[in-house]
Amino acid sequence: MKLLQEAIEQRGTIINDDILKVDSFLNHQIDCRLMKAIGQEFAAHFQDQNVTKIVTIESSGIAPAVFAGDCMDVPVIFMKKSEPSTMLDPVYTEAFSFTKNRKYTLCMERQFLSKNDRVLFIDDFLANGQAFLSAEDLIQQCGAHVVGVGIVIEKSFQKGRALIEEKGYDVYSLARIQAMKDNKILWK
Amino acid sequence: MKLLQEAIEQRGTIINDDILKVDSFLNHQIDCRLMKAIGQEFAAHFQDQNVTKIVTIESSGIAPAVFAGDCMDVPVIFMKKSEPSTMLDPVYTEAFSFTKNRKYTLCMERQFLSKNDRVLFIDDFLANGQAFLSAEDLIQQCGAHVVGVGIVIEKSFQKGRALIEEKGYDVYSLARIQAMKDNKILWK
Repeated sequence: MKLLQEAIEQRGTIINDDILKVDSFLNHQIDCRLMKAIGQEFAAHFQDQNVTKIVTIESSGIAPAVFAGDCMDVPVIFMKKSEPSTMLDPVYTEAFSFTKNRKYTLCMERQFLSKNDRVLFIDDFLANGQAFLSAEDLIQQCGAHVVGVGIVIEKSFQKGRALIEEKGYDVYSLARIQAMKDNKILWK
Repeated sequence: MKLLQEAIEQRGTIINDDILKVDSFLNHQIDCRLMKAIGQEFAAHFQDQNVTKIVTIESSGIAPAVFAGDCMDVPVIFMKKSEPSTMLDPVYTEAFSFTKNRKYTLCMERQFLSKNDRVLFIDDFLANGQAFLSAEDLIQQCGAHVVGVGIVIEKSFQKGRALIEEKGYDVYSLARIQAMKDNKILWK
């Protein structure tokens, strides 16, 4: 997606060979026009999947997810990174953040997904795929099915895509970074 | 806002005289069509304020804020409830959550607001106003100015509105709850 690649090149910051900061338009400050275009792109790609719900993880996945949800006319559920103590009937799992190098609990209310739900998972980044695996665990605990994975920025030099594709899912990433070297991005 | 009041009455859950759960359309699962209408309503109300940025607090404020941001064609910044250790030049403050009965650190990157910014603050709930005061603190630390406060659901039986209006700000709440009694909502 050209508009997104330009935003990454012009407004992103390469911290090192592994870390890209995009908090000027995605992770902290949000470019609403770009997020809307991203949502429309996800909606177009997954339009034949009969998606009934979109699932994302708080907080950076919410903006692209709700614009996709608006286009597809389906609700968005954001899974929470917190103890499920205030929930009525939660499903939860232990997850691990490589970015923050710590464990956290990912949870959601069971009632918002059922066996008839066809779920599109949307997230801001795909790196090693651990966030997706945790989300998939909760979606399956609710009896629902993943029918697609929409990613804003993929670090193609990490194993996430292979891991998700091995499970037979369609992974659609809008920007695929093959490498970051000498302050430049090599696109896949 | 009639559509929102109907959603609260039909899909919200009154836990007790103080607590309303709206996680089926706002706080956990998001009704995108309703959030878009909410964003449009905020945009219409504050259209003459020359808003340059919208600020909200993660996570439940993000959906209404980005739809408003799309209408007004301005960026949204979501303040983070975390230690600002990964930020380059943060502003931060100690805040207190009455809902969770605990302190937390609210922070944002200083660079995303400047003295020329006219900020619309949007949040899902207004109760005692403490979240707004913490956000206002950060906005002012950046040298920017609050020009309006947009709230999805106001608990009018708490002191938040009075506290914000005393400072001279325009508070626009889309649903104002005067009381919750016997499982019924009395609108203001």
